[in-house]
Amino acid sequence: MNHYQCLIIGAGPAGYVAAIRAGQLGLKTAIVEKDAIGGMCLNWGCIPSKSMIESARLFERLKKAGSYGIDGVDPKALSFNWAKALKRKDGIVTKLVKGVGFLLKKNGVEQLGGEARITGPGRVTIGDLEVSADNILVATGSRPATEPFRELSAGRVVDMKAFFGLQNPPASALVYGDGIVAAETLLLLAGIGIPVELALPGDTLLPELDGSLGTFLARRLKKMKVTIHKNVKQLAEAGETLRVDGADSACHTVLNCARRVPVLPVFEGAQPDLKGKALKVDEHCRTSLPGVYAAGDGTGQRLAQIAMTMGMAAVEHMAGQGEPVDMSRIPLNIYTDPEIASVGESEESLQARGAEYRKGEFPLSANGRALAGGAAEGFIKVLAEEPYGEIVGVHIVAPNATDQIAQAVSMLQLECTLEEVARMVHAHPSMSEVLWEAHLDALGRPLHK
Amino acid sequence: MNHYQCLIIGAGPAGYVAAIRAGQLGLKTAIVEKDAIGGMCLNWGCIPSKSMIESARLFERLKKAGSYGIDGVDPKALSFNWAKALKRKDGIVTKLVKGVGFLLKKNGVEQLGGEARITGPGRVTIGDLEVSADNILVATGSRPATEPFRELSAGRVVDMKAFFGLQNPPASALVYGDGIVAAETLLLLAGIGIPVELALPGDTLLPELDGSLGTFLARRLKKMKVTIHKNVKQLAEAGETLRVDGADSACHTVLNCARRVPVLPVFEGAQPDLKGKALKVDEHCRTSLPGVYAAGDGTGQRLAQIAMTMGMAAVEHMAGQGEPVDMSRIPLNIYTDPEIASVGESEESLQARGAEYRKGEFPLSANGRALAGGAAEGFIKVLAEEPYGEIVGVHIVAPNATDQIAQAVSMLQLECTLEEVARMVHAHPSMSEVLWEAHLDALGRPLHK
Repeated sequence: MNHYQCLIIGAGPAGYVAAIRAGQLGLKTAIVEKDAIGGMCLNWGCIPSKSMIESARLFERLKKAGSYGIDGVDPKALSFNWAKALKRKDGIVTKLVKGVGFLLKKNGVEQLGGEARITGPGRVTIGDLEVSADNILVATGSRPATEPFRELSAGRVVDMKAFFGLQNPPASALVYGDGIVAAETLLLLAGIGIPVELALPGDTLLPELDGSLGTFLARRLKKMKVTIHKNVKQLAEAGETLRVDGADSACHTVLNCARRVPVLPVFEGAQPDLKGKALKVDEHCRTSLPGVYAAGDGTGQRLAQIAMTMGMAAVEHMAGQGEPVDMSRIPLNIYTDPEIASVGESEESLQARGAEYRKGEFPLSANGRALAGGAAEGFIKVLAEEPYGEIVGVHIVAPNATDQIAQAVSMLQLECTLEEVARMVHAHPSMSEVLWEAHLDALGRPLHK
Repeated sequence: MNHYQCLIIGAGPAGYVAAIRAGQLGLKTAIVEKDAIGGMCLNWGCIPSKSMIESARLFERLKKAGSYGIDGVDPKALSFNWAKALKRKDGIVTKLVKGVGFLLKKNGVEQLGGEARITGPGRVTIGDLEVSADNILVATGSRPATEPFRELSAGRVVDMKAFFGLQNPPASALVYGDGIVAAETLLLLAGIGIPVELALPGDTLLPELDGSLGTFLARRLKKMKVTIHKNVKQLAEAGETLRVDGADSACHTVLNCARRVPVLPVFEGAQPDLKGKALKVDEHCRTSLPGVYAAGDGTGQRLAQIAMTMGMAAVEHMAGQGEPVDMSRIPLNIYTDPEIASVGESEESLQARGAEYRKGEFPLSANGRALAGGAAEGFIKVLAEEPYGEIVGVHIVAPNATDQIAQAVSMLQLECTLEEVARMVHAHPSMSEVLWEAHLDALGRPLHK
């Protein structure tokens, strides 16, 4: 029977990153995957969506080519070739999946195919294979939700894994969800001309983030005349279209962008403590079972960057080095156009805990680089807590929000104050000046506002 | 005779930003401009070039539309309409110039048109108008160099101010220079299909930056088969083409992207100390004359962000608040495609002073977001000084280098170490992961390399 110092179940972002790190740390490591290396994120989630979104962005931008001084484009002659865009996506995914396989090998990680069952302390079976391990990392990810889709036949509801394999886009789509995936998918389809509607489980988009972000998106959808159904409890078929609770929808297909459900391996002996349907873990990603760690969606988290962070923290702890995971400064990216990104506290959470804070805001429309780039929609909002003016939250709507947020993460992590940012030189012209001016605004001295 | 607490000569980025800040600080302020509010940067430099570059970028991208899954674009039918692109640029410049005028008014700054002469301590005349001031800020900018263009007739050499007013692009262009403007202009013209050559005053492009950046550009130009003339001393006409020292050039027009020459106002009485042709200033931007400050190109600097920083520092010092200007952490942006950006020390400068350092590098080609975006050319290089691993230089070639560099500025400014960056969570997928991985690489533990 093979013995490992570290056995990882699941090769999505939590698992494969943990495996690479474990290899670097010198742990004898194996990783078990029953489907595809890279998991949901690489094969049917983050990467496919960013590839398709890039195609859709270019499609939208092309229509305005004339105003940039480009002759020879007839906007009416343009059409989006879904199959070709998918093919481009496939090439990127294949390249990255191969890359992860190569990295696992390079770092001495053994790859095992199949479904793992935890049969006892330090014991795992994969099909007929039985192995033992000092420590196990459960990184089994998540599956699509089944509510509120139970009344729909199989062909009428499409989850994200199926979506990125569709040979044609849906003729019309009701997007169900209120998070990142719902926002990205809705705007991707709208961008390529597919009629869309939105069905929210509650009454807002991005309910966990600073209210300014959901408000921006809602306004944009209103401008695009996208119908929004709120507090949706049940979806049903009505011939070629749908019923959303009591109301009619003009759409045929439902896209399941609901919050996903944790997937756990079978534990044959002692059962781990749960928190809802997810594995309960401590700040070192330990479950209640000795020698069993967990990371990523199986612990009730949702973002790839959290999965990676937890995976690394878990194996570092196995190797006696781990630092506790700090969930307070995790950036979140949404690849809409303009993009949305956020880190730290929302204004609502500051108000809820009665914190004394300053707020700064600056619009992209006052930034030369944004205007020159033809993408001046959006704003940056900065929140700083008194008495020191320490930056505790940054919320961005901008064409490059997903890049800019990294600066904000640095500032939060280094416990930086507004005055410190005011003294940093930001290149001119650049969109980073918007972030700078939002800080100056919080200090009452914006330059260009 | 009107009296001001602060009189600013020149309304480019040094002057107009200083004026806004002076107004915020409650100083009775006037600003004198003989030409256009916003100066070179806003009217004929940074902003026009970024507008035209955006058009050229879209033009290049459009040719690949098919591979993104967009049907209906015939690459052969595409043509770049210079006049239309200029018109778009004009609209952006006009909007921003108006904006600056509005901000000056809003902050109580009086605007005076004409050329200022400093007639004595605290005395300035503008045409027939004589005014007095507690303090004067000289922000008079720069003018095009005249060497090595003396043998060329007026129609054969075009400076940047003239360039952005040309109703047609040159049929072919020899770009003279080795800095930001030369690199941007060369690639802008090449991008829209104009035959170009490069004439370097020395033997490298971007000679003052980390060598990896100039090397990247040189390789790219070689791939594009752009002829590079080195150590160029004199340019001459040869019928419809040019002679570059002893060699032939196939180009007709020379673009003057040489390092510009400081412009100073007339000082009728005591003369200020100079450093070369520029005004000598201390860390609070004071010249050798009491009550006379200077900022920007007139002090031998070249970047708008330095001009703005100096302008603000000067008026803050007038108001008794100024902090010394720190030139060691000024980011520099180049809007080529991919973009180039840099902050802090180069590897060459670390070697020259015998510093012990670590180096990390990470290629964009290993980043999922870059691949999905169709822009995976480039790298990020990080330099950290021992024994603490303090980050002292970051050098970026990436499609969004000019955004990403702002995070590097924060890290340098906050004296951050490699280990601190390693522990920051970077969103997935995002190009900020390249910066993160470059830091991990310097620590010997990159994940995706």
